Amino acid sequence: MNDAPQLNEIVSDMKQLQDRICAGLEALDGKARFREDNWVREGGGGGRSRVMENGNVFEKGGVNFSHVHGTLSTDAARSLGLAAATDFSATGVSLVIHPLSPMVPVSHMNVRYFETGDNQWWFGGGMDVTPVYVNELQAKQFHQQLKDLCDAHQPAYYDRFSKWAHEYFWLRHRNESRGIGGLFFDRLTAPAEGTKQQLFDFVKATGDLFVEAYCQFVNANRNLPFGESETQFKLFRRSRYVEFNLLWDRGTSFGLQTGGRTESILMSMPPLAKWEYDYRPEPGSKEEKTMQILQNTDPRWI
Amino acid sequence: MNDAPQLNEIVSDMKQLQDRICAGLEALDGKARFREDNWVREGGGGGRSRVMENGNVFEKGGVNFSHVHGTLSTDAARSLGLAAATDFSATGVSLVIHPLSPMVPVSHMNVRYFETGDNQWWFGGGMDVTPVYVNELQAKQFHQQLKDLCDAHQPAYYDRFSKWAHEYFWLRHRNESRGIGGLFFDRLTAPAEGTKQQLFDFVKATGDLFVEAYCQFVNANRNLPFGESETQFKLFRRSRYVEFNLLWDRGTSFGLQTGGRTESILMSMPPLAKWEYDYRPEPGSKEEKTMQILQNTDPRWI
Repeated sequence: MNDAPQLNEIVSDMKQLQDRICAGLEALDGKARFREDNWVREGGGGGRSRVMENGNVFEKGGVNFSHVHGTLSTDAARSLGLAAATDFSATGVSLVIHPLSPMVPVSHMNVRYFETGDNQWWFGGGMDVTPVYVNELQAKQFHQQLKDLCDAHQPAYYDRFSKWAHEYFWLRHRNESRGIGGLFFDRLTAPAEGTKQQLFDFVKATGDLFVEAYCQFVNANRNLPFGESETQFKLFRRSRYVEFNLLWDRGTSFGLQTGGRTESILMSMPPLAKWEYDYRPEPGSKEEKTMQILQNTDPRWI
Repeated sequence: MNDAPQLNEIVSDMKQLQDRICAGLEALDGKARFREDNWVREGGGGGRSRVMENGNVFEKGGVNFSHVHGTLSTDAARSLGLAAATDFSATGVSLVIHPLSPMVPVSHMNVRYFETGDNQWWFGGGMDVTPVYVNELQAKQFHQQLKDLCDAHQPAYYDRFSKWAHEYFWLRHRNESRGIGGLFFDRLTAPAEGTKQQLFDFVKATGDLFVEAYCQFVNANRNLPFGESETQFKLFRRSRYVEFNLLWDRGTSFGLQTGGRTESILMSMPPLAKWEYDYRPEPGSKEEKTMQILQNTDPRWI
């Protein structure tokens, strides 16, 4: 266990992961560049937020690295299932990409490491994709990539973590899924789940799969034609994204509660979103088909 | 106390208040009409949602009446400060109006009555205004109307309830106010705050002041010119409205938790909202002036 990765190594690898992802996304977009904001958290630590806007493909994308530490309030500690206020350190990379075209899905990836003053630690993370219009073949291919990733580390992971994602990204007030799911995992720790090194390797591999997997969606769809009705449906689907993130996402509430930088946390918000009272898609339309897929309470993509 | 207003009378008066408000808003708009949806809540009760869209003045407005009853879950009971799960009945009128013009403020009003199976009851409510651009003279006039209303019932109310509104509508993650405040009150009960009849009279008077007060804002501003930069600032200000309602508004979370109708609860959402990473108004601009006013932690309008 003396060789187990320590906080400084994890922090450094998270930063490098952010670099690789930003380089990959810039190459994929071909036009927009990330701007960087360094920020300091009052209670300890800070972060490096990178945002691109108005690209060829990406209307808005944010890739955030942070390493925050200090003392967790009793409320924040309880929300993590810890008995009392404690020192903590948390680091990770989190990203959300909103493409301009309704034919290219929104995507989200997050990897994180958390440790407390009394030597508890865990990894969490995952990635998921939110198409405006669900393409079932592409959804299957994506899930196969996720399964391959999981199987290379621990054969039980794909089933567990894809179900966990489905539950996590379920909009309870709408009875629908945010998108086609992906992986979600939290509280992975040793020895229950392997060694610390094995878990860290899995988390890094998740982070590095992101650009590779998202490339497939982008390149398969970036040149598809679309018109006003697809754009309107995109604005509607984005309002669901806003609802999920502000109502249910634990990362968002944890970040805002622990004094994270608001602009960095809410860079997940879409550039523009639309709410229409009691919107219902036309019977038989492709919009209706997508809504039906999203209402499936037990999708098995592969 | 035998003459104290009972639930059926309160419910009936709430419905009539909804009727008067809708008639007033239709007259004010001059074009759009409310459409009505009646809905039934699975656990008991239901409501009458009325929405207008694409009017002369109002891009989207919702006026909701509801009367829901049943058993409150332990979680929902706790969020109200009650010790255990209990039977409950709740009725009220709630409205949010989003005008098309950035020169006409958003407005919100709510009056509500709540009672439990063991005969606890209280009234709550209030109204507040969210201008895209704050006009200080109009804000003062509005607060004077609110003060006059309060003074006619209980001289201490204006100070208490306008401070309460300021605290309630404070966006903690932004360190700014949602708008110019107004009144907010909750848990008004007898004998601490007067008789039940007196409290009900105050609540009804609050509801009836709404159209009168909001008329002033609409008629003073509806014909003011505006251009693209004002419209963009409106879309930005609306994103703050979304953030408040989904992150902090207790009515929204209580409604979603207790199985209220999602479309009725979220008819408070603006038709279109914009998020721009780290937006900052131009130094010296009217946008900057409004943001500075909203950041005032202790505004005294009168």
